[in-house]
Amino acid sequence: MILKNELAKRITIFNAYWQRYLTVGKPTALYDAVRHLPFAGGKRIRPALSMIACESISGDSQKVLPFAAGLELMHNFTLVHDDIMDHSLLRRNLPAVHVKYGEPTAILSGDLLFAKSFEAILETAVDFQTYKELGRGFIACVIAICEGQQLDMEYESLKTVTEDQYLGMIQKKTGALFELSAQGGGLIGGGTPNEVSALATYGMALGLAFQIWDDYLDMSSDPKTLGKDIGNDIRNGKKTLIAVHSLSHATGRQKQLLVDIFGNRNASEQEVKKVYNLFRELGSVDYAKHRAVEYTKQAKDAIAILKPSDAKELLHLLIDFTVQREK
Amino acid sequence: MILKNELAKRITIFNAYWQRYLTVGKPTALYDAVRHLPFAGGKRIRPALSMIACESISGDSQKVLPFAAGLELMHNFTLVHDDIMDHSLLRRNLPAVHVKYGEPTAILSGDLLFAKSFEAILETAVDFQTYKELGRGFIACVIAICEGQQLDMEYESLKTVTEDQYLGMIQKKTGALFELSAQGGGLIGGGTPNEVSALATYGMALGLAFQIWDDYLDMSSDPKTLGKDIGNDIRNGKKTLIAVHSLSHATGRQKQLLVDIFGNRNASEQEVKKVYNLFRELGSVDYAKHRAVEYTKQAKDAIAILKPSDAKELLHLLIDFTVQREK
Repeated sequence: MILKNELAKRITIFNAYWQRYLTVGKPTALYDAVRHLPFAGGKRIRPALSMIACESISGDSQKVLPFAAGLELMHNFTLVHDDIMDHSLLRRNLPAVHVKYGEPTAILSGDLLFAKSFEAILETAVDFQTYKELGRGFIACVIAICEGQQLDMEYESLKTVTEDQYLGMIQKKTGALFELSAQGGGLIGGGTPNEVSALATYGMALGLAFQIWDDYLDMSSDPKTLGKDIGNDIRNGKKTLIAVHSLSHATGRQKQLLVDIFGNRNASEQEVKKVYNLFRELGSVDYAKHRAVEYTKQAKDAIAILKPSDAKELLHLLIDFTVQREK
Repeated sequence: MILKNELAKRITIFNAYWQRYLTVGKPTALYDAVRHLPFAGGKRIRPALSMIACESISGDSQKVLPFAAGLELMHNFTLVHDDIMDHSLLRRNLPAVHVKYGEPTAILSGDLLFAKSFEAILETAVDFQTYKELGRGFIACVIAICEGQQLDMEYESLKTVTEDQYLGMIQKKTGALFELSAQGGGLIGGGTPNEVSALATYGMALGLAFQIWDDYLDMSSDPKTLGKDIGNDIRNGKKTLIAVHSLSHATGRQKQLLVDIFGNRNASEQEVKKVYNLFRELGSVDYAKHRAVEYTKQAKDAIAILKPSDAKELLHLLIDFTVQREK
């Protein structure tokens, strides 16, 4: 079984399905803005995870599609609003929605995607009790993402952040939606409470591994081609796990270097490279890699209770891929 | 029966109820921002309307409270985001959320209020079929409000807007939520399809009368104390019904005056007053007043099918008050 092919199969089905929530409409500028990001690509990991989770407890993943659409619409809504808050110019290699359509229309298009996400959830063919569980989980997840984004912004201006604070933040900002994706797939598929809970734990661990590996990838690229993002993250004082580790392990001259440059918006290219090199010297880049791999073990342990199946094997391949990917 | 007292009774019950959705939390700045506008006052007309609509078909208005909380949370969410888009500095005589907490946190607090509105709706004690109707109505209403706000922004930069365009815009931006409030109260109270439909029509007409009367009030204040809002509306070229009427009835020198000043951000105080006076000369202020009163007749006609009751009398008093109020 090849992960890439299995993902592609499901994503093709998903993409054909969720377009019903992304129709053209009037006012044209608003609906163009709504459609901009969803049609700009995206990995669709969350919908795919939801479908595979459902299959892993012998559920029919066709039944997950409305819920999966809700997940992806919500994910896109948070990206549109986050890009405004973070002043990001690019997303998926295209201008961010607020850059192309202006900030007011971008705010509205995020709100509209959010409304559409509830519309999608409402179409899930489940009983009222299950619907309420899904709905409450969905709301709790949106709230967690809002809290996580607020923490992420607040942490940028803090001198230091502990590893626990960092993990708490990414649990909310990234982990919660992966958790909900796997959990929702299990619920809709009719999994037992134990199975649903195992899938939720798997989803959270996958989300954390995914986020930490993203941090690792950003910092492990060739220093000669040091990307703009690394520079921005260092200049903004972004508290990734790597930065958090370095901030707590640097001493003397190293510490001074971080105090002077990390979070300094006017840092030169040369200074940024010094911090980049320090992150490696202090073992922080390797540490993050190691922590991501630890979460893959947690994820696998969590789903040990599931019966063997192709879908279970896919869940293993997916978590392994998360910490092997190079982009 | 005194309208003010009857509204106050219901609003006291409502205010005690919906606070459960506005608890303190962490990150503190985010939850302070979430609580800012809901605790800054507000007329609570929508929740009260929903409760009275329910009573008017012999329903128990206690059952409406979660839905009413959803309406008011959603209304507050749209105000927070609208104030960002419109660069409004004040709301309910206090700094707007984005002025006090910054734009990023204001965007997030609006998103969180939106999530809370769905949480509230989910707690309504109805069967799944009724819940789905409420949920779909709620989503359609949010989408209408987004579309209405987009149109309102787009219309500011148009030279002229027809009365039909204006009415279509306020149907979405203001009418839809009043319609949903009355309709939802009727649905939750177990009204017949005819009764629910009558209440919906009443709600929409009430919303339109409410909005047009607001336009009228803004423009009928003493010209000596000409408020800042009037100046802003004229300088921004805001297409109120009054402006729309004047733009289509002005000729010759009057038309030129509007072309030169209406929508000119640098217009002087003196020039603004000229436009203000022209609106009155052309009969546009009286026309708006007349149109608002027409909607009160539509509203009363719509609920003629309801059996006589105290609540029905309140609906009459409420629509009359809407076009008699002086603020």
